[in-house]
Amino acid sequence: MVSKQILEDISNSSAIRAMFIEGKALAEEVGRENVFDFSLGNPCTPVPEAYTRAMLEIIREEDSLELHGYMDNTGYPEVRKAVADSLNRRFKTRFDAGNIIMTVGAAGAINVILKVLFDPGDELMVFAPYFTEYRNYCGNWRGVLSVVEPDYETFQPDLADMERKLSPKTKAVMINNPVNPSGVIYSEETIQRIASLLEQKQQEYGHEIYLISDEPYRELVFDGKTTPFLTKYYRNTFVTYSFSKALSIPGDRIGYLVVPKEMADFDTVFQGLAIANRITGFINAPALMQKAVARCLEEKTDVDFYDRNRKRIYEALTGLGFSCVKPEGTFYMFLKSPEPDEKKFIEAAKKHHIILVNGTTFACPGYVRLAYCVPYEMLERSLPAFAALAAEYGLKSA
Amino acid sequence: MVSKQILEDISNSSAIRAMFIEGKALAEEVGRENVFDFSLGNPCTPVPEAYTRAMLEIIREEDSLELHGYMDNTGYPEVRKAVADSLNRRFKTRFDAGNIIMTVGAAGAINVILKVLFDPGDELMVFAPYFTEYRNYCGNWRGVLSVVEPDYETFQPDLADMERKLSPKTKAVMINNPVNPSGVIYSEETIQRIASLLEQKQQEYGHEIYLISDEPYRELVFDGKTTPFLTKYYRNTFVTYSFSKALSIPGDRIGYLVVPKEMADFDTVFQGLAIANRITGFINAPALMQKAVARCLEEKTDVDFYDRNRKRIYEALTGLGFSCVKPEGTFYMFLKSPEPDEKKFIEAAKKHHIILVNGTTFACPGYVRLAYCVPYEMLERSLPAFAALAAEYGLKSA
Repeated sequence: MVSKQILEDISNSSAIRAMFIEGKALAEEVGRENVFDFSLGNPCTPVPEAYTRAMLEIIREEDSLELHGYMDNTGYPEVRKAVADSLNRRFKTRFDAGNIIMTVGAAGAINVILKVLFDPGDELMVFAPYFTEYRNYCGNWRGVLSVVEPDYETFQPDLADMERKLSPKTKAVMINNPVNPSGVIYSEETIQRIASLLEQKQQEYGHEIYLISDEPYRELVFDGKTTPFLTKYYRNTFVTYSFSKALSIPGDRIGYLVVPKEMADFDTVFQGLAIANRITGFINAPALMQKAVARCLEEKTDVDFYDRNRKRIYEALTGLGFSCVKPEGTFYMFLKSPEPDEKKFIEAAKKHHIILVNGTTFACPGYVRLAYCVPYEMLERSLPAFAALAAEYGLKSA
Repeated sequence: MVSKQILEDISNSSAIRAMFIEGKALAEEVGRENVFDFSLGNPCTPVPEAYTRAMLEIIREEDSLELHGYMDNTGYPEVRKAVADSLNRRFKTRFDAGNIIMTVGAAGAINVILKVLFDPGDELMVFAPYFTEYRNYCGNWRGVLSVVEPDYETFQPDLADMERKLSPKTKAVMINNPVNPSGVIYSEETIQRIASLLEQKQQEYGHEIYLISDEPYRELVFDGKTTPFLTKYYRNTFVTYSFSKALSIPGDRIGYLVVPKEMADFDTVFQGLAIANRITGFINAPALMQKAVARCLEEKTDVDFYDRNRKRIYEALTGLGFSCVKPEGTFYMFLKSPEPDEKKFIEAAKKHHIILVNGTTFACPGYVRLAYCVPYEMLERSLPAFAALAAEYGLKSA
């Protein structure tokens, strides 16, 4: 007697979590130290001390009824202003509190935006390989997913395919930059071409197409690279952000969304978002976490840790003959499976106690995701297992 | 270009918040001390010290990566077990961790349940006067609301009307006990009659009808009364709970839902709820708040404070000739408007600087809600204004 939608959600349910559970089962069998689990994107670098200190200070200093009470559904005005100021400093934008809504992470933000935009049957365009939850978020609001192929050399989106698939039903286009699972950063050129294509199609269809830029991995970029801030390229852009990865606090459920004043029908959209944040059940982002992140906007966890892992595993695996686009951000990399059916490769890897996630989950069959947010020494210990796996497939060392 | 649903949500948007904003505007005009604002259900009794102490201890003691990390989407197993144990002690139930999911408040819990149950067009039955957000939660999942009239003498539901309105499309029935906005407790007899009616209709229709018992005010009951625990009366019952009112922590967004093992298709329902909690964007209830409430399950804020307010305002207003069902729980009372159009009465009250919320919002035109979660001395100071209002309507003092 449950809904058809949830039955579909259950049957699609996360291959990522499934692999994580398989990893745990294997660990019980052969010992935790003998399993090389690269399945889950769970941050493993310490929470910045400033965050802990901020929490303790806030709890001690503030009146408890104020601290744990209701505020505007959009969040504390001073927190929203602090977020706006920080974005302005970093990205030369001109936001104020009126452009920001504090949310229950990026997942909360995206659901609130889709609730505001989507009538049943509207299309959400995503770029493969895409974060598998976008399909579920879209399903919540009875939208239909439209999947654009990547250029398999660069893992930038195939913009010719995008142009073919844009339609009058396209309500929004989702960008995740840097990309989970490929680790690629969409270049400024890619962004400019996407923006100009959308401008053209808006004109042609006579209505808005919204861009949603989901940026939970914004701070996890390497080699001095940065991601473009999309409101500067296209006015109908929402930005969604989570502090989960940058501060290693995914359990705390805190993030925000940005809506530029230049957006079409700004007032209606903003009012809709504030109401949607309330009625979808979030009410408001957790009060204490709002105040704590406001004091840590310039803090980052140890990004160099992830960078060291990235370099080690990328060089080791490509050295063994595996093929992989070079990751520039996030803590993921996307290996080409040495055989066409990557699920068979995953089974083979599991025999060497290596746990990976299939690319089909991200709409890219033939690839596997490896999450290298793991202790460095585990990563080191996994390399002989990868070498044995490469040998099994007859890969040639570089 | 926003969705039709959000346009409807905007136009229905909370009269409660609107009155709260009017109250603030009036306060700026005539001075805050001269406004008697009874619009908002914002707890005003202190947060128990045990909660603050628990938070500080947990932050100091626990490894920060563990404390702020992901856990199962259903919540920490030990927190879920603590909730189950506490319910078992109080209500002689037999729950374990496997019956409990920690949620982002009761609002989160209800949305997760409706997402699992509802196909578009399914009906949610509510009892007037009902908490206005139920309409919005139902709209999120494209359900249709079916509203049962109260018995206007007792404000228990009119069960003959319920029987008339139950239909094969009825997917779930929502109970809020004690009731926001009437303050009434549904008696055990009412519950038994509802349960037996639902059993009969399940039989007749050949499918389940679910009961959702929303209990954020469970601890705010007076005169030694208690509310029945509904899983004991009807097996297809979900219970939703929030700590917002009992601990005065509405900004913290923490609650839980209960699913009894006896529920039809328990495994599918529970799996659906766990997935829905993730994909609707909550992911999990805020980690720190889960751990903090687990240490405060037997704590309550100062319920006697609300009781003192209740007695004072109920006796004063009925003494002035106003008519009102006697509140037994919550911190609301539901006055009969002395003129048929309660919106005119609200305007008249506003001239005396009294801020109330119209009953139409709760599907009970001709009544107004008064939230007495206010400082006692403000309540005292409001009484001459109520006396003047009563005189204006020619009400007779008792």
